[in-house]
Amino acid sequence: MSHATIGLISPGEMGAAVGACGVAAGSRVCFAVAGRSAATRERARAAGLAEVADLAELTRVSDTVLSVCPPSAALEVARAVLDCGPSGVYVEANAVSPSTAREVAALFAGAGVSLVDGGIVGPPPTRAGLARLYLSGDRAAELAGCFAGSFLEAIPIEGGVGAASALKMGYAAWTKGTTALLAAIQATALAEGVGDALRAEWQRSIPDLLRRLDSLPGVGRKAWRFEGEMHEIADTFRDAGLPEGFHRAAAELFGRWARVHADREPSELEVLAAELARGPNGNPDETGAS
Amino acid sequence: MSHATIGLISPGEMGAAVGACGVAAGSRVCFAVAGRSAATRERARAAGLAEVADLAELTRVSDTVLSVCPPSAALEVARAVLDCGPSGVYVEANAVSPSTAREVAALFAGAGVSLVDGGIVGPPPTRAGLARLYLSGDRAAELAGCFAGSFLEAIPIEGGVGAASALKMGYAAWTKGTTALLAAIQATALAEGVGDALRAEWQRSIPDLLRRLDSLPGVGRKAWRFEGEMHEIADTFRDAGLPEGFHRAAAELFGRWARVHADREPSELEVLAAELARGPNGNPDETGAS
Repeated sequence: MSHATIGLISPGEMGAAVGACGVAAGSRVCFAVAGRSAATRERARAAGLAEVADLAELTRVSDTVLSVCPPSAALEVARAVLDCGPSGVYVEANAVSPSTAREVAALFAGAGVSLVDGGIVGPPPTRAGLARLYLSGDRAAELAGCFAGSFLEAIPIEGGVGAASALKMGYAAWTKGTTALLAAIQATALAEGVGDALRAEWQRSIPDLLRRLDSLPGVGRKAWRFEGEMHEIADTFRDAGLPEGFHRAAAELFGRWARVHADREPSELEVLAAELARGPNGNPDETGAS
Repeated sequence: MSHATIGLISPGEMGAAVGACGVAAGSRVCFAVAGRSAATRERARAAGLAEVADLAELTRVSDTVLSVCPPSAALEVARAVLDCGPSGVYVEANAVSPSTAREVAALFAGAGVSLVDGGIVGPPPTRAGLARLYLSGDRAAELAGCFAGSFLEAIPIEGGVGAASALKMGYAAWTKGTTALLAAIQATALAEGVGDALRAEWQRSIPDLLRRLDSLPGVGRKAWRFEGEMHEIADTFRDAGLPEGFHRAAAELFGRWARVHADREPSELEVLAAELARGPNGNPDETGAS
């Protein structure tokens, strides 16, 4: 399987880097050009990906279809592939809850397609050591071979479909959950006029937090992707019997952040924090559900 | 004011250590013995505190009444002191929301008593450098003198009543909020069978988390105090227009943890995590509000 044809959906920043790793490990990796922008095609070309016309052709020529997309699109992508009559392996590599991964597996099981659950931890694998692709399900070890020796370390884990997603959810629950929490704390402290005093205390007792605090303005650009992922994490907590409110609140915060960011360039932390303190309609009283 | 008589409510672990710092700085610090256990009296004696009979006597003999108690008791303590006819200064040093601090200030303003808002950051000040007492309000700088040179660094900040509480809320929102989040992640990962795999990933990419993970079982003993504090933080976020769900969820988690802990000694992390995944009535479906 290390010289398979992999159909990649889709070559965004993460997908293109993952695809390049498949190419480096000896596979042909293709993507469907239908509806894609010139920028995306250029990114995919630079990554060494081959063009096919559309999803139907991608599904027909691929041994393995690999889904790397925003979590809110994961089920839609899976159903679209299913409509094209896939065979071989489908890899659900998105930041979705274990129950979503199992739902996708059930869809494909009916079509005789093996589901490998995947979870990508880390940034796009543009050099070695940055990211891991956790894999679970019957053909996880086989699929890991498709990335052997590349910048992307593929790690098969026990537990069947759902395990790789659960690991990803737990990982992102901390990294992105604490980013949202820190932004909310900063916005609250600024609203109460104690931003400088709290920063001074952190400087003394939790100095590592200042680096994260100062990197917050750069999060706005990515916030639109995080909102759906936070809901997947909240679902994961709920399904395991834990309180879901941490990540419902994080979803609400990232959602506001994305709407602020859509309007203008990244702003001063203070301005951003003030914006975050506004409800969905700009009314401080309408803070939304959490 | 550095040789005032301070009436301390009450000499718990934190209160006794704070009281000892007042004694070290030259004040007489007293507490009311009425209703207190032999263990509390012994702790207070060891801290150098003087005994008075009851709250009425404490209020009568003190220039400054200092409240150090669980946040859920803060208003009740303030009203009880008010009933005793206080004069001078009342220090609301508990982990309460700015609006609770302002409510206490309004109560005392009617009686002609100055309110100093306080927020203690760090563990009990049993040696230098461990803890800070942030103070705000008209007489904050004056009160800071009562701890000059002691193990407790008193820091006056701008912003009036509410500022010191806001700083404390922001600080605890991170420290205790992330403790709750980490416990919830661990419980979820164990429920999904990926505890070891997630730990291995953290070992690689966020090794500092393992120390916090391994210290989680020791949190059970303190969880009863944290539940009310998390609600105060959630109120603070809500009042500032931010999502309150992070700390409602943390309150729910600490509440479960306290109930588990009340039944038995600290347990293995796995057992504890499994218990946390149960709802208030032991039903995994009843995860409570968040």
